[in-house]
Amino acid sequence: MCELLGMSANVPTDICFSLTGLVQRGGKTGPHKDGWGIAFYEGKGLRIFHDPSPGVESKIAAFVQKLPIKSEIVISHIRKANHGKVDLKNTHPFVREFWGFHWTFAHNGQFKKIKEKSLGDFQPVGSTDSEYAFCWLLGKLKKKFKNPPKKEAELFKAVESLMWELHQKGVSNILFSDSRNLYTFCSTKLSWITRKSPFGKARLVDADLSVDFRKVTTPGDRVTVIATRPLTSNEEWMICQPGEFSVWRKGQIVFSNR
Amino acid sequence: MCELLGMSANVPTDICFSLTGLVQRGGKTGPHKDGWGIAFYEGKGLRIFHDPSPGVESKIAAFVQKLPIKSEIVISHIRKANHGKVDLKNTHPFVREFWGFHWTFAHNGQFKKIKEKSLGDFQPVGSTDSEYAFCWLLGKLKKKFKNPPKKEAELFKAVESLMWELHQKGVSNILFSDSRNLYTFCSTKLSWITRKSPFGKARLVDADLSVDFRKVTTPGDRVTVIATRPLTSNEEWMICQPGEFSVWRKGQIVFSNR
Repeated sequence: MCELLGMSANVPTDICFSLTGLVQRGGKTGPHKDGWGIAFYEGKGLRIFHDPSPGVESKIAAFVQKLPIKSEIVISHIRKANHGKVDLKNTHPFVREFWGFHWTFAHNGQFKKIKEKSLGDFQPVGSTDSEYAFCWLLGKLKKKFKNPPKKEAELFKAVESLMWELHQKGVSNILFSDSRNLYTFCSTKLSWITRKSPFGKARLVDADLSVDFRKVTTPGDRVTVIATRPLTSNEEWMICQPGEFSVWRKGQIVFSNR
Repeated sequence: MCELLGMSANVPTDICFSLTGLVQRGGKTGPHKDGWGIAFYEGKGLRIFHDPSPGVESKIAAFVQKLPIKSEIVISHIRKANHGKVDLKNTHPFVREFWGFHWTFAHNGQFKKIKEKSLGDFQPVGSTDSEYAFCWLLGKLKKKFKNPPKKEAELFKAVESLMWELHQKGVSNILFSDSRNLYTFCSTKLSWITRKSPFGKARLVDADLSVDFRKVTTPGDRVTVIATRPLTSNEEWMICQPGEFSVWRKGQIVFSNR
């Protein structure tokens, strides 16, 4: 299994604090030592860092943790290999261009016989079931919608239905983004917290580190962090139900089946 | 205009030395201060770093220069914006998946009316003429070959012909890779050097830095470095002719119109 970390915010925000907690699980407080990756959106632009080294040992992870990249959407993943060997090409998040946007995908879980599903226009580069599922999902969307639908809810419903199809194939906790929205699907475990005014202090579960968000925010900020398991010990995280699907924009839910 | 740097090697090789020279041109010894990017192939895997900051000031560039990533193919670019504002999404190299491989593209020059050409299956994310040309090129290849042609020379000839079409549209010095080959097209300026045994010393033009390749190589190594302008002052670089197209694999030319 793997660990996921996502962020949706209404102002460009850095994820240094949460990321420091996550990477500890990459070989120190967790067994997810088979690679690590993170995608930062800046508008339509995307920065993506991948490393097949354990998160806790990765020079790139150490560097990125300190780099205050400000982003409205982030997707990160640390890997414990199941399907597909430890290799750069098998490191999440995966990325594809579709409709002139960068789409990204990270997955915790395992699919059974996912490769029986036929692919459309997107092909995997690596050998994981996760990247295969991502390519299948985008291929289905491209077949259904030649262009982005005018009513965005049509897109959200289509993604939800495809997420349910993946859920039938195994454990599929998923973070997925189209550059504007962050889609989350909870198959077995996913939790989230929205931080907004009045801000307080937070303490990591996985490292001896605290932050006082009052000192690094402005009153209008709204930042939602999503993770496989809660990352802080003194805040109340919402635990998602199996089957829960949400679409986040600017730190809040814009579509959900809850 | 922009500056390009490429590498093709028969053993995974780091590009720290050449990159140190290149990034000086990003605001110090050259005016190319509108962003910077680099793509490293490790087999089918790809690492890509982008930063819209000037290369010489970029924290990411400073970090990557010291990171001894070993790669068989590298494409790097520093940008002086012409078309498309200074923005992460407009930073080369651009990347797309095609046939289950990561393809990358970096361009020095400017095209006229390139956006009159109709696109196929690939869409630009940003607003540069360069990314538009890349999308057009891949769309043409995808239309011509549903799958990779069995005879690789057919692919090389098709790429050459498309490069010539781009050349008709303006200045198009190009580095392009399909994960296995590095394609180079010289429209106005491009130069290269192949380093192999017996190795010697090299001294950068743009920084006070030398390297003794005897100390960092083994006798079988063959490393070709391609750049807009020669990067070292004491070696003999080959200057490409306008219209020269070459395909490099493992440090040597496997196809060329010279």
